[in-house]
Amino acid sequence: VGAGEQMPERHTIRAYDDELSKLGNMIISMGALAESQLEGALRALSTRDSDLAAHIVASDNQVDQIDADVDLLAVRILALRQPMADDLRMIVGALRISSTIERIADYSANIAKRVLVLNQMPSVGPAASVVQLGQRVQILLKSVLDAFINQNSEEAIKVWRQDEEVDRFHTVLTHKLTEHMSDNPRSITACMHLTFIAKNIERIGDLATNIAESIHYQVKGTRIQEPRAKGDSVPLDP
Amino acid sequence: VGAGEQMPERHTIRAYDDELSKLGNMIISMGALAESQLEGALRALSTRDSDLAAHIVASDNQVDQIDADVDLLAVRILALRQPMADDLRMIVGALRISSTIERIADYSANIAKRVLVLNQMPSVGPAASVVQLGQRVQILLKSVLDAFINQNSEEAIKVWRQDEEVDRFHTVLTHKLTEHMSDNPRSITACMHLTFIAKNIERIGDLATNIAESIHYQVKGTRIQEPRAKGDSVPLDP
Repeated sequence: VGAGEQMPERHTIRAYDDELSKLGNMIISMGALAESQLEGALRALSTRDSDLAAHIVASDNQVDQIDADVDLLAVRILALRQPMADDLRMIVGALRISSTIERIADYSANIAKRVLVLNQMPSVGPAASVVQLGQRVQILLKSVLDAFINQNSEEAIKVWRQDEEVDRFHTVLTHKLTEHMSDNPRSITACMHLTFIAKNIERIGDLATNIAESIHYQVKGTRIQEPRAKGDSVPLDP
Repeated sequence: VGAGEQMPERHTIRAYDDELSKLGNMIISMGALAESQLEGALRALSTRDSDLAAHIVASDNQVDQIDADVDLLAVRILALRQPMADDLRMIVGALRISSTIERIADYSANIAKRVLVLNQMPSVGPAASVVQLGQRVQILLKSVLDAFINQNSEEAIKVWRQDEEVDRFHTVLTHKLTEHMSDNPRSITACMHLTFIAKNIERIGDLATNIAESIHYQVKGTRIQEPRAKGDSVPLDP
């Protein structure tokens, strides 16, 4: 075996590095797109803007497309480059993060769909609190995507911890929505849509923690060890 | 390079095959466990059995543990065996299916948690329809796990199509729950829990279609191409 076969030639290493950084950049674009989908859905909710909501719904396929491209590229790199250790974790992590971001965009589009329906009804008070919940989750999402860009597992763990506050806020909000329905039975339909929107937002918070876990895995090679209640908590009063 | 290095020795191939079939068997056990978690949660709902519900909640970590083991083994195989083509798709698919099954078990445990809360309140009529929705999704889950065992992409596509019926049933059920709340404001809290349970069940149906997509990818190497509305449809009346 000649040295040229033991050690890949320089242009091959270069091509491989290019593929890895392309994969990272695709995830970063996907993340930015998902962030803007969530931001748009929440703005459409708070301003009752149906045109914007319709635009968010129509844009969902862009994220799906990048997710499919990430899958193809990741599997191609796995097949052709047979990466080891750090690179392998980077790629397996990228596969996970990409499908998680795709789901975040899905939930954002679902929020926008419900805004279209809500805008056909008189507005109800608790909508403002749902927007507030959304703004908290926007911050989590931004932070975890920054942690990905910086491959910073400490930042990731911070996000992972902060999701508990979101869950508590969501519990209080669901309680508020339930009370509002009892006091205003004619707003039950609108409040049910808001309940589903709030649940979608809470799920996006959970997905941000999943991204945090994947970043930790990419950087450290291990699962986050701290015990923490799972996001999907069940309040005694819903 | 001697022939012995080009072609791995027989015991190495054997060990590799053993690892691959171990991975498949772990997914099959996980699937069976998730099926039984869902079955138990639904039985606890229909019979108002709090002991059973508590047992389901306590058993959730078993599935989490297998999911973690699947991840470890899959990444180990990727690193040590550098699998190509079919085997690579099998492994990447296994990673996806394993995390999907873990989520199904999570949702089942969440249903059981809500049953514990519901059992503190007087029972409400629509609970029976929620159980019916659950039974439909149980069938989807069983079928898609059979499709995995048989690595049968046609069976998988069939499940993928059937989820539309589940979504329609869920839409009608949510409408029914909303009406029930309007007519019986004192049952609003119980109906909110049933709404979340129904949503969890509908999500399990979506996850069964995700497994179907992963099986199709494992067997054919492509995404399912048929256009189909996404599961998370938004009815005009929730």
